[in-house]
Amino acid sequence: MNPKRCAACKYLRRRCPKDCIFAPYFPPNDPAKFACIHRIYGAGNVSKMLQQLPDQTRAEAVESLCFEAKCRVDDPVYGCVGIIHLLQTQIQNAQNELAKTQAEVAVAQTKVGQTQNSDQFM
Amino acid sequence: MNPKRCAACKYLRRRCPKDCIFAPYFPPNDPAKFACIHRIYGAGNVSKMLQQLPDQTRAEAVESLCFEAKCRVDDPVYGCVGIIHLLQTQIQNAQNELAKTQAEVAVAQTKVGQTQNSDQFM
Repeated sequence: MNPKRCAACKYLRRRCPKDCIFAPYFPPNDPAKFACIHRIYGAGNVSKMLQQLPDQTRAEAVESLCFEAKCRVDDPVYGCVGIIHLLQTQIQNAQNELAKTQAEVAVAQTKVGQTQNSDQFM
Repeated sequence: MNPKRCAACKYLRRRCPKDCIFAPYFPPNDPAKFACIHRIYGAGNVSKMLQQLPDQTRAEAVESLCFEAKCRVDDPVYGCVGIIHLLQTQIQNAQNELAKTQAEVAVAQTKVGQTQNSDQFM
């Protein structure tokens, strides 16, 4: 066994070829990363997706796939769509808070205006 | 050919069994839904994920998987992680706007206070 096989080839119990599509993104010291992505997408699908991408975008694609796979393992019903819902709620809350605060500004500015006007007529 | 086969069995060119795990979620009139999920996860992985879930959560799991698959087809590098980044930026912007507006409230309230104080001493 070659101890320098990448985590994917180690997991798949196969020889790690020189031009292994997984090797640059799955170093042997992080076996969990490949296990997670393999469990959700399957090695074949991940390899196919990477092959369809230009080299310089593959690292980012692997990171986003790993993130989604981890979310799906953690939350098998909603996956990372659960995070999207949570963020949408946070945006809604922030926007409500903003509208409330903008109304407070309008009230305070009206008060300032009224006080200044009444000063002019004193 | 049975015209009532679900979209998944039609796609996989197989007989649709009575207890087909896909049939409740992939009606024959929406073939694109299964095609998309199959392209990203593979039928076997989806079937495995659904089998591990209680019946009442499977419909929501299928919807979130379809959403993620569609995002990945539309954006092969970032998938729905791209949406998460976008939402995080929106939250940051809303929070910045909120902080700015809260500062405006504080300034306006200080002005009201000062005007009221100066009125008392006139």
